Amino acid sequence: MTLDLTGDAVTLTQQLVDIESVSRNEQAIADAVEAALLPLDHLRVSRLGNTVVARTELGRGERVVIAGHLDTVPLNHNLPARLDAETGILHGLGSCDMKAGDAVMLRIAATVREPNRDLTLVFYEGEEIEGEFNGLRMLGESDPDLLTADFAILMEPSDAVVEAGCQGTLRAEVRTNGERAHSARSWKGVNAIHKVGEVLDRLNRYEARRPVIDGLEYHEGLNAVAIHGGVAGNVIPDECVVEVNYRFAPDRSQAGAEQFVREFFEGFDVAVTDSAPGALPGLDVPAAKAFIEAVGGEVNPKFGWTDVSRFSALGVPAVNFGPGDPMFAHKQDEHVPVEHIERCEQQLRDWLEAGL
Amino acid sequence: MTLDLTGDAVTLTQQLVDIESVSRNEQAIADAVEAALLPLDHLRVSRLGNTVVARTELGRGERVVIAGHLDTVPLNHNLPARLDAETGILHGLGSCDMKAGDAVMLRIAATVREPNRDLTLVFYEGEEIEGEFNGLRMLGESDPDLLTADFAILMEPSDAVVEAGCQGTLRAEVRTNGERAHSARSWKGVNAIHKVGEVLDRLNRYEARRPVIDGLEYHEGLNAVAIHGGVAGNVIPDECVVEVNYRFAPDRSQAGAEQFVREFFEGFDVAVTDSAPGALPGLDVPAAKAFIEAVGGEVNPKFGWTDVSRFSALGVPAVNFGPGDPMFAHKQDEHVPVEHIERCEQQLRDWLEAGL
Repeated sequence: MTLDLTGDAVTLTQQLVDIESVSRNEQAIADAVEAALLPLDHLRVSRLGNTVVARTELGRGERVVIAGHLDTVPLNHNLPARLDAETGILHGLGSCDMKAGDAVMLRIAATVREPNRDLTLVFYEGEEIEGEFNGLRMLGESDPDLLTADFAILMEPSDAVVEAGCQGTLRAEVRTNGERAHSARSWKGVNAIHKVGEVLDRLNRYEARRPVIDGLEYHEGLNAVAIHGGVAGNVIPDECVVEVNYRFAPDRSQAGAEQFVREFFEGFDVAVTDSAPGALPGLDVPAAKAFIEAVGGEVNPKFGWTDVSRFSALGVPAVNFGPGDPMFAHKQDEHVPVEHIERCEQQLRDWLEAGL
Repeated sequence: MTLDLTGDAVTLTQQLVDIESVSRNEQAIADAVEAALLPLDHLRVSRLGNTVVARTELGRGERVVIAGHLDTVPLNHNLPARLDAETGILHGLGSCDMKAGDAVMLRIAATVREPNRDLTLVFYEGEEIEGEFNGLRMLGESDPDLLTADFAILMEPSDAVVEAGCQGTLRAEVRTNGERAHSARSWKGVNAIHKVGEVLDRLNRYEARRPVIDGLEYHEGLNAVAIHGGVAGNVIPDECVVEVNYRFAPDRSQAGAEQFVREFFEGFDVAVTDSAPGALPGLDVPAAKAFIEAVGGEVNPKFGWTDVSRFSALGVPAVNFGPGDPMFAHKQDEHVPVEHIERCEQQLRDWLEAGL
């Protein structure tokens, strides 16, 4: 499919949605994006795997990265795209997360030929699956210069309002052990599931930290997300595992988060299985201030974890800003309001053309 | 294979073990047992499926049923049988549970031609799996007269000591419900796993009833035997299920057991999934008294559930009495001491020939 960058962003979103690009199947969409960008002679286009980068090189005093992933979660009978003209809602897999954002980026690429700050547009693969496949991560490792910038905008759905920073996430297994016995003689064993009572009691007593950072109130959470134990219907179980997920505010490091979880479950066997750092809002840099002002001044904290933390790790302040309600991401009835797409495009253009 | 009933019970046990008879595959062993019994003209032999019954009809004043199941749990690299002459231990699948008992029954069938009480020997299928396949249950339904008796002995492994009655068993699912939410905004949901804390707290406070019945102290137990909950690593779970197993003393009915469990978990969603009644020891009938005296007077309570409860339901007092340590039933290294086999055979013979 040939993408038409001269049309409107809504039509372009539809075209992108209709190129199925479930994670690990991004070649067709990356080819289409690359082919659409290559004729634009104000951009230098490069490609790594199915990640496409387009940069201006105007020697501006500031550089901003705008990034959006090209992949989606698996199909769920939600293709092709369907525009409901009456409600102004575009439905379809990836419409919200985040092909509407990609369409806005492509429109900016085609129409803002002399932005007031240098632009790096990153269309990347593998965001919805394990980090090892993440195109932004790979790019940061192989070509870190391509991500160097004063500020970054990640087009994650955020209701077309800036969501700053992101919370970190840590998963751990809290394990209890016991001794098997036949359940008819249960006193000969030690029940590992019963021991989990204390783990759950502590979780029920947990009080969430809600630190205010750069004027934004974050909100942590510590939850059991899975539990399993049991050998057979007539056996006292000798092991029970509670999988907990700690979402921590960006003023806490991964190490600090791990320490908190270990202390919280002191006396139990705790194994951290997965962890990703948060990102501080970083709203005090000039590029961020100017951007927020340009989009109306409203800023919310981002509770979920997003790739803004990868920019943060590279020393680039970053925010989330994209069309669509994140509550509908990954849902069967994923959709995006046309008004969000148009507003995001307009606000980005206004910001990038201001003072010219 | 042809079974040799003129040899000793240990060799016969070996022969039975070597006829693989995992539940639902009992035809070969039932054929062999039937073929070995048919030539014995003091017995009337009948068959229902893979359950074989052999009866004397001597018009004695009392009748005793001796029953043993022919099936085993699944193979676990523990065939063929292996006799360790040095330790006097016979190893192999089913050696303990309960082909040694079957061998003793076959030796009694072949050698006690004029017992002092009429004998009904039942070799039955499908004990180790769902009750619908249980040969003793099917026989009781289709030919209840064949199970009519004054007393019954079930050759369940019991260290060659009488274990009287059995405890009942009830399984129930205790369920909590919540509301899903993304774990990054956990306060928007209700965590069903956390709610299970109270279920486990109650289990940890549980104090087991230990009623004394006919001089035997039973010992109840209420345990979580399985727990599961969880949707995904980033989702607040909306359901958690604790599977509990209540083992209740035989002075409590199934209905009483269910009422206890429902009251114990009041406020939670409780669904009974499975239940089987216990059996009172019933040691006050003359046949039981005489038997216990013949085997040395020692009696222990049976904590596990066994098919004695089926006899109990038919109004036939029953005890467990068989070679082998029940702790090794269903284990990879299942085994039976030769001494147990010999002692059980001798004691049964002495009892059945006393006064002749």
